[in-house]
Amino acid sequence: MKLWRGGRLATLAGERGWGLVDDGALLVDGGRLLWVGPSAELPEQAAGAEVVELGGALVTPGLVDCHTHLVYGGNRADEFERRLHGESYADIAKAGGGIRSTVAATRAASEAELLAAARKRALALVHEGVTTLEVKSGYGLDLATEARMLRVARRLAELGVDVRTTCLAAHALPPEFSAADDYIDAVCAWLPRLQAEGLVDAVDAFCEHIAFSPAQVARVFDTARRLGLPVKLHAEQLSDQGGAALAASCGALSCDHLEYLSPAGVHAMAQAGTVAVLLPGAFYALKETRLPPVEALREAGVPIAIATDHNPGSSPTLSPLLMLNMACVLFGLTPEEALRGMTVNGARALGLRDRGQLVAGQRADFCIWDGGHPRELAACFGHNPLIERVSQGVQGGP
Amino acid sequence: MKLWRGGRLATLAGERGWGLVDDGALLVDGGRLLWVGPSAELPEQAAGAEVVELGGALVTPGLVDCHTHLVYGGNRADEFERRLHGESYADIAKAGGGIRSTVAATRAASEAELLAAARKRALALVHEGVTTLEVKSGYGLDLATEARMLRVARRLAELGVDVRTTCLAAHALPPEFSAADDYIDAVCAWLPRLQAEGLVDAVDAFCEHIAFSPAQVARVFDTARRLGLPVKLHAEQLSDQGGAALAASCGALSCDHLEYLSPAGVHAMAQAGTVAVLLPGAFYALKETRLPPVEALREAGVPIAIATDHNPGSSPTLSPLLMLNMACVLFGLTPEEALRGMTVNGARALGLRDRGQLVAGQRADFCIWDGGHPRELAACFGHNPLIERVSQGVQGGP
Ligand SMILES: [Zn+2]
Ligand SMILES: [Zn+2]
Repeated sequence: MKLWRGGRLATLAGERGWGLVDDGALLVDGGRLLWVGPSAELPEQAAGAEVVELGGALVTPGLVDCHTHLVYGGNRADEFERRLHGESYADIAKAGGGIRSTVAATRAASEAELLAAARKRALALVHEGVTTLEVKSGYGLDLATEARMLRVARRLAELGVDVRTTCLAAHALPPEFSAADDYIDAVCAWLPRLQAEGLVDAVDAFCEHIAFSPAQVARVFDTARRLGLPVKLHAEQLSDQGGAALAASCGALSCDHLEYLSPAGVHAMAQAGTVAVLLPGAFYALKETRLPPVEALREAGVPIAIATDHNPGSSPTLSPLLMLNMACVLFGLTPEEALRGMTVNGARALGLRDRGQLVAGQRADFCIWDGGHPRELAACFGHNPLIERVSQGVQGGP
Repeated sequence: MKLWRGGRLATLAGERGWGLVDDGALLVDGGRLLWVGPSAELPEQAAGAEVVELGGALVTPGLVDCHTHLVYGGNRADEFERRLHGESYADIAKAGGGIRSTVAATRAASEAELLAAARKRALALVHEGVTTLEVKSGYGLDLATEARMLRVARRLAELGVDVRTTCLAAHALPPEFSAADDYIDAVCAWLPRLQAEGLVDAVDAFCEHIAFSPAQVARVFDTARRLGLPVKLHAEQLSDQGGAALAASCGALSCDHLEYLSPAGVHAMAQAGTVAVLLPGAFYALKETRLPPVEALREAGVPIAIATDHNPGSSPTLSPLLMLNMACVLFGLTPEEALRGMTVNGARALGLRDRGQLVAGQRADFCIWDGGHPRELAACFGHNPLIERVSQGVQGGP
């Protein structure tokens, strides 16, 4: 048994409020929180515990990054530079750029190469306090490479982070297919094989005019549901395809992006309990101007999560803390909403109810920060005040 | 003598281009670069040098953060939160918020308290590769506190960073003055005293309708020039006051912000060789929409620098690398322009010609990065690939 005491806890207990406990304590046993409250009210069972003094530091739940594309080959800094020298997206795509270049680099990379690159990226997230990490496939677009990406994602758990894998084979049409429906057939055939290898915790798709139609997504989701796999969707990022309503009708865990989400989509998500995952990094990097309907989501009671969406093209960021700030500055979330989005609501977007709040019974995943108030985590940008990260009761260093 | 070899150098030699040298070497003696070039062409004098193998890592000049307000008491995260809960700037100012709250907290803080807080901030900058750091006063607005701020700034040199101090007493009207002209009289009287204590490398002012008029700024600049101190100006951030032209006519080292800079201001700066310091962090955090005239600055040949503008209100960032990315994404600079802005042109904005390029004769201030190409430093955001920082030939760790 281990006891952390003398910290300022932002428990995020309940549905709103910081849940601040000054001079608070956390009693941990078997990787779980056994008791959380004011140090002065410690229960008797804490008597024999090993003690860690927090010295007034701030403690929050561990961060949950619920939407990343962390495993891939190459990078696209060259395209970033070319666009700033005046080349258009279309020119770059014509020259083999964009997602196609990442697919080519990922297919060409060995598992060891993919792991070495992804490991560095995951470490950057871990060093900012991430204790639960979702990783999507989707740059293989063939069975062997999708499986390789997901195996690499699983191996990131070595870093002391809980990894959830999502199969996003329905991300883009690979060059060897000319008909999207044929590719969807292939994806539906791959899913049981990837599941049998233990590689799939959830199934995702990209519903957009430049990717797959709602009818094609529905076929992927039908297969997922027959396999008992939860679904989520890249929806309404560039246009309103009605993807969110479709996903909600399939009981989706989350719909992600959502800049073009309609009132009907908001309603369907609220009815289904689907989480809205907002991705300010992509909004920023793509210089989007259309905002996700935050006020409508609030009014409908749709839980809002925030994630890095790390990917080499539209969101090459490795800073969950910067996403907290961008969620506030760009989307108008409050600092508390942003932190809930990167903790308890991020966990919900992965179907996880056992983490994201500092409450007895939850996983002992938490972060110790140099700061006086949790709003400081969102108010600053480009700054990492993490002192220590604790995953299942194990101190991991920052 | 010490030799770093086997790295990819981005020398930034000359007026444009990355100045890439693959498998390059740097020979250092007495804190200066003695020779820079391809490892294969090493001069004979390198024979006895202690060798550091770079292993293919990327090397750039050390970063120069030429505009910060790094020393202050308190923070303003509470105001950030209140604005996101719907309170207006005006309401917050009426309740004693904004710069007035920072002035009160700074006046109330001891030198040791100011140093402890500023030290952490400076370390964050140093950990991203900053080797030269400018720090402004301007939250004291009385002689004792302005002096205390500048003494604290000087002491940050202990961290292995070259510190340049700027007196910004003409930042805002302190509460004990009702007439701005009377306060300017006081500032002009303080300058020689602060200079006599060795605390002032340059003099700055805030020329804006909410701060001081061009006529008032001119009086400060006249005093500075009589004392032989170079000047710089917060100009044209919220409106076109003609401040840049005034500053240029005084031979200013730099004009900073410049969103509302007029063509006449661009011309005056070009004539005077005044550097344009662009501050994307404040632009981002204030949600500004008016862009600085980057194309006009380019055409006129005005050197462009980039800085964090770290301050507790409008730019609470401690990431120079994030500023490289924001300069590209928000202002349309190329990655090379952004890196020149944070190296050689940042140095010029401080009147320093002895750093910012990897060229024989310059200070041996450089950064070793985990990366293949310098454009990657600007293409990612919220990521720090620094391996090691070298200041005057001394390895400082990241
Ligand atoms: Zn995504
Ligand atoms: Zn400033």
